[in-house]
Amino acid sequence: MLQTNGKKLFDAVGADAVFTTCDYMKRYITGFATENGFVLVDKDGTYLYTDARYTEAAEKRLQGTEVTVKMVDRFSTPYELLKNYASVGIPVAVTSYPEYKKIEETGVRIIDATQAFRDAMAIKNDWELSCIQKACEIAEDAFLALLPEIKEGMTETEVAALLEYHMRKLGAQGVSFDTIVAFGAHAAVPHHETGDTKLCFGDEILMDFGCKVDGYCSDITRTFLFGDDGKHEEFKKAYNAVLTAHNLVKEKLVSGMTAGEADALAREHLAKEGYGELFTHSLGHGIGLNVHEYPSVRPKNTDTLVDGMVFSDEPGVYVVGQYGIRIEDTVTLQNGKVKSFMS
Amino acid sequence: MLQTNGKKLFDAVGADAVFTTCDYMKRYITGFATENGFVLVDKDGTYLYTDARYTEAAEKRLQGTEVTVKMVDRFSTPYELLKNYASVGIPVAVTSYPEYKKIEETGVRIIDATQAFRDAMAIKNDWELSCIQKACEIAEDAFLALLPEIKEGMTETEVAALLEYHMRKLGAQGVSFDTIVAFGAHAAVPHHETGDTKLCFGDEILMDFGCKVDGYCSDITRTFLFGDDGKHEEFKKAYNAVLTAHNLVKEKLVSGMTAGEADALAREHLAKEGYGELFTHSLGHGIGLNVHEYPSVRPKNTDTLVDGMVFSDEPGVYVVGQYGIRIEDTVTLQNGKVKSFMS
Repeated sequence: MLQTNGKKLFDAVGADAVFTTCDYMKRYITGFATENGFVLVDKDGTYLYTDARYTEAAEKRLQGTEVTVKMVDRFSTPYELLKNYASVGIPVAVTSYPEYKKIEETGVRIIDATQAFRDAMAIKNDWELSCIQKACEIAEDAFLALLPEIKEGMTETEVAALLEYHMRKLGAQGVSFDTIVAFGAHAAVPHHETGDTKLCFGDEILMDFGCKVDGYCSDITRTFLFGDDGKHEEFKKAYNAVLTAHNLVKEKLVSGMTAGEADALAREHLAKEGYGELFTHSLGHGIGLNVHEYPSVRPKNTDTLVDGMVFSDEPGVYVVGQYGIRIEDTVTLQNGKVKSFMS
Repeated sequence: MLQTNGKKLFDAVGADAVFTTCDYMKRYITGFATENGFVLVDKDGTYLYTDARYTEAAEKRLQGTEVTVKMVDRFSTPYELLKNYASVGIPVAVTSYPEYKKIEETGVRIIDATQAFRDAMAIKNDWELSCIQKACEIAEDAFLALLPEIKEGMTETEVAALLEYHMRKLGAQGVSFDTIVAFGAHAAVPHHETGDTKLCFGDEILMDFGCKVDGYCSDITRTFLFGDDGKHEEFKKAYNAVLTAHNLVKEKLVSGMTAGEADALAREHLAKEGYGELFTHSLGHGIGLNVHEYPSVRPKNTDTLVDGMVFSDEPGVYVVGQYGIRIEDTVTLQNGKVKSFMS
C-alpha cells in the first residue's frame, strides 16, 4: 500500500513548512505524479496543489493517505501561501534562480532542504522497495522472454523494441531510460546509441535496460555471446573477472561501509586481474524515482551506505574496438547486507 | 544533415559567451545528448565540454559541424573558463540558484538568455523539422500497424506495449512520454494512467502517444470506437464537433496570428456546438526536444505564431464518467500556413 513521505520529510527538515515545485520531489512526497502545481507540508498535513487536469486522479489515489489535494488554477503561484510561515525548507539545489528570488521576496526565511530531501529519498520505505522489486522482476522476466526470440540478422533497435514490449506487457509503466542494446565492439562504448547494426553469429550482446513501476526504476545490464565462434577467449577471461567483481560486492559489502569502500571491493579485484585501467566508470549509483540519484558509489566517496538504500552494482571492462562487459543488478542494503532484487 | 545551433543562439543573445549546463539546451545547441558537462559558445566557436564516457561518440557525431568536443574530468567546473569573458548569457529560468550564485561569483556579467533560448528553440531549422517529420511518420505508421492487432479482452497496457513496440521497431529511439491508452469512460480523464482494464466490444479507445527521433518528439492523439454497439450517439456528435474544430485550426490558422487567436478557432466552434465548457484544456503546446515547450497555444495568449514553429492542434471534449474525445496532430507553420506532419 502507498506510503507517502510528507511527515518523514517535514520532521527531517525542521522548518515551519516544506515546499517544492520539483516534479520528482512532489511525486516522492505524495506518491502521485503531476507536471503542474506544488507540494506544501506543514505541521497540520501534506498538501498537493494542482489543477483540474489532475485533481480527480489525485484524489482517487491519495484517499486514506496523509495527503490532501487542493485544486488551484493552472497558473496560480504559491507565494501568498508561503507568507503564512516564518521558515520554509526548499530543495535549493533544484530550485531555479527566479523561483528562489520570488520565495525570498515573500519574507519567509529559506532553509536549504537539499540534503534532507536527498537523505530521505535515499532510504526507501517498504512501499518504495516493493515498487523497485516489481520493476526488477518485470525487467528480468522480460529479458528471459526475449532471449529465445533473438535471431541472427535482427538489429539492435529490434532487440530493444522487443525487450521494451515485454516489459510494458508485463506491467511496466514505461522504461527507466532508452534501452541500450550494443552488438560486438559497440559494447565497448558505455553509452552506445542503439542503432541499425545487425546481429551476427558469435557477436557479443550487451543490454542495459530497466523499467518503472509507480515511478520507481529498475536498472540491469546483461552481457552475453550470441553463439560461440571460438574467438572470444579474451572476452571470456574479462567476463569472469567482471562477474567475480560484481559478486564480491554482493558478498562483502555491509551497511556502514563508505561508497568508496564498496567501489574498491570490485575495483581492487579487477586491478588484480589486470583490468584496473579498463574499469572506466563508478561501481554504481542510487536508484529510485530517478535512475541516477544519491548515493554515488564511486572511488574515494566517503558517504556511508546504510540499510534501505538502493543502488546499482555494475562493474565493467571496456576495450575500445574489441569488446565491453558490464554486469549490473539493482540491489539494496537490508539487515546490514546486500540483497539483490534480481532472482 | 545535422544543423547545430551555436552561432544562431550566440548572435541572438549578444553576450561575449553563451553558457548552459541544462541537458536539453546542450542538446539543442550541439545536436548531441550528454548528461554531463556543459556547452560554451563564444565568437570563436561552440564547445561541448564532457567526460570520457561521451567524448568518442560526440566527436564521431559532431565531425564537420561548428562544435568542438573538449574532454574534461567528470566533476570539473566551468567557473575558471567563465572568468575569460566580460558577459555571459545563461538561461536563468532553468539555472539553479546555487549555479547562478557561482557564476555570479566569477565576476562575469550575467545576461538572462531565457527568452533568446526559448525563441531560438521555437523556430525549428530544416534538420529539426526532418527529425519531427520522421518521429510523426513513425508514430503514425506504428498506429496503423497496431489497429488490426487490437482484440477484445486486451488490456490498456497491452495495447500501449504493442504500439510502443511498433514505434521502436520502426526506428524510434524512445517514446516522447509514456503512452496513454484509455478505454471507455477512462478517456474522460485527460491524463488517465494506462492500466489493466480490458477492452470490450463497443468501447471507445483514446490513444495519446509519440516517439523521439534524434531527441525530437512527435505527439498524436486518436479517438475511435472498437466496434459500434449503437450506444454512442452523443460520442459521435461530439466527435464530429472536435474533428471540425481540429480541422478549422489547420485551415484558418496563418502565421502572424496570436496563440490566443489560434486557440479561439477551435474553442469558438466547440462553444457554438454546445461543448464550450467541456473543452477543459489549451488547444496546444510547442513540440521539439521537449514534448511540452514554447509556444503555449492557449486562450488569450498574445504570443505570435510564426513560420518554423511546431506545436500540437488538439481540441478535446470530456464528459466525466461517459466519454472523452481528443484529436491531435503535430503541426508546423510553413510559408504562412499550417502544415501537418501527419499524412
